[in-house]
Amino acid sequence: MTEVLAVDVGGTRIKASVLDRSGAAVRQLDLPTGTADGPASVVAAVRSVARELAGPGIAAAGVVVPGAVDVRTGTARYSANLGWRDVPLRDLLAGDLGVPVAIEHDVRAAGLAERTLGCARDVTDCLMVVIGTGIAGDITAAGSAVRGATELAGELGHMPVHPDGEPCACGQRGCLETYSSAAAIARRYRALGGGALDAREVAAAPTTDRVARQVWAQATDALGIALATCTMLLDPAAVVLGGGLAEAGETLLGPVRAALAGRLTWRDSPALSVSALGARAGQLGAGILAWQAIGRPAFDAWPAGRLATGR
Amino acid sequence: MTEVLAVDVGGTRIKASVLDRSGAAVRQLDLPTGTADGPASVVAAVRSVARELAGPGIAAAGVVVPGAVDVRTGTARYSANLGWRDVPLRDLLAGDLGVPVAIEHDVRAAGLAERTLGCARDVTDCLMVVIGTGIAGDITAAGSAVRGATELAGELGHMPVHPDGEPCACGQRGCLETYSSAAAIARRYRALGGGALDAREVAAAPTTDRVARQVWAQATDALGIALATCTMLLDPAAVVLGGGLAEAGETLLGPVRAALAGRLTWRDSPALSVSALGARAGQLGAGILAWQAIGRPAFDAWPAGRLATGR
Repeated sequence: MTEVLAVDVGGTRIKASVLDRSGAAVRQLDLPTGTADGPASVVAAVRSVARELAGPGIAAAGVVVPGAVDVRTGTARYSANLGWRDVPLRDLLAGDLGVPVAIEHDVRAAGLAERTLGCARDVTDCLMVVIGTGIAGDITAAGSAVRGATELAGELGHMPVHPDGEPCACGQRGCLETYSSAAAIARRYRALGGGALDAREVAAAPTTDRVARQVWAQATDALGIALATCTMLLDPAAVVLGGGLAEAGETLLGPVRAALAGRLTWRDSPALSVSALGARAGQLGAGILAWQAIGRPAFDAWPAGRLATGR
Repeated sequence: MTEVLAVDVGGTRIKASVLDRSGAAVRQLDLPTGTADGPASVVAAVRSVARELAGPGIAAAGVVVPGAVDVRTGTARYSANLGWRDVPLRDLLAGDLGVPVAIEHDVRAAGLAERTLGCARDVTDCLMVVIGTGIAGDITAAGSAVRGATELAGELGHMPVHPDGEPCACGQRGCLETYSSAAAIARRYRALGGGALDAREVAAAPTTDRVARQVWAQATDALGIALATCTMLLDPAAVVLGGGLAEAGETLLGPVRAALAGRLTWRDSPALSVSALGARAGQLGAGILAWQAIGRPAFDAWPAGRLATGR
């Protein structure tokens, strides 16, 4: 019993791995989520992937999903992207696999992984911001997750950073997501006359590309405003940026750090870094929760120097 | 030993009471803080008030102060208003009085009082916002205070609600305090051609007073924006508005509630109310901490129906 199953259910792909005690993937599957066929088929796909991958060596499983999650009852409450509502995912999978199962919100799991294995180890007051198609955060205060009264804390993407700003898909104006998500950066670049570049390409565009410069500056400035607000409210010791956009590394960190510092007068900025675990953070968080579900230390053979060698 | 000493050290007044088990003041003192004579004289004034008021019946004392507080070491770390830095207030007073002493940040103490005796009883995810000369908040998540890495969480007053807005005394632009504090409302009313009214008079001005209408609308709208951001980040079940401005009651609540709801699309607003304890919240919080310091239930003779009778 030296392996756990870790499943990361995303809006487009289900990424599942059997992980050993060092966090390495012994075997893995990566399949389409299949949202086009409705929520029942998403649930069926998750169960099928889990059954297919799990073997007799599996001690427990962790599953992380987007949207709202009730960890107490093990229920995936709802997700706009997946279309599901009140799915008793923990019990379904525990029945299928015959081992303890934990479920969690994907961004909270990514934050847990960064605090356990990544670049915010042992930081008790921490904010992780995952920037991909949307933007969401995981808030830890005094070592405990801030979940909120209805498990909806951490919705950084819909903070009104520019109250009279551009319309957001949510119906409001000026949400952080409207300026700074990977999807928004690509969309705004096109809308302002640029071509069909994705967010990383906009970030890497030559300095002669005036539109790219403008869109990237507005994206990083909006992140700076949002993080200044989070700093005032939460006073974190560390802020970790994750998700696809964080792969831009210093190209992202530099201007966000400057924008944040420029918005703070009478106090220092929290330490700002990009995720050490990258796209694996959510899945590693699922693995940590699986170990926790059986009262075992999480990935106790994790190589001490792994982070020094990059992602 | 049925009484505690509760001291609320403000920027202009020190308000101290001996409170019985029902929370009623047996005797009290209200003196100028004396900041003009420097921080040493503020400390001397606090000690003198405490010594003068405490009697042999005092079981413990609680002291609440503005600025940054280290509750673990009992130190008042600093306060811009009081000018002090690293004052070992707990130990000084414990030595003077010979009883256990607790110290706390004034706004966190007010939030504790609202959650213990006031209008957010037993709410585990709660935000209290105290609006006076400045604006600060007390955040509770899953029943625990969110203090932050350096005890500076809850600085709502310096959230950038209008990132390119009016200059704030802190050196930034568009801080919530610049629009919505009692001081800002009076200042903006004068600056826009109104007379020398205070914030409550601006709120109560006749509808024919166009400047008052504009200043009040901008103040309550900025609060709505700030609370929308807090709702997204923290998902509180209840938001309590306290401090002097909250005495405006429904005149404040109505437009703030509308502004908040108007900024939220896909989720409900948290319950919004004004403080049930009013200006006594901080002092009652100090009293609760005093009882807690000796392991006794706080104000167990508090009249059940007190809140129904108003402040």
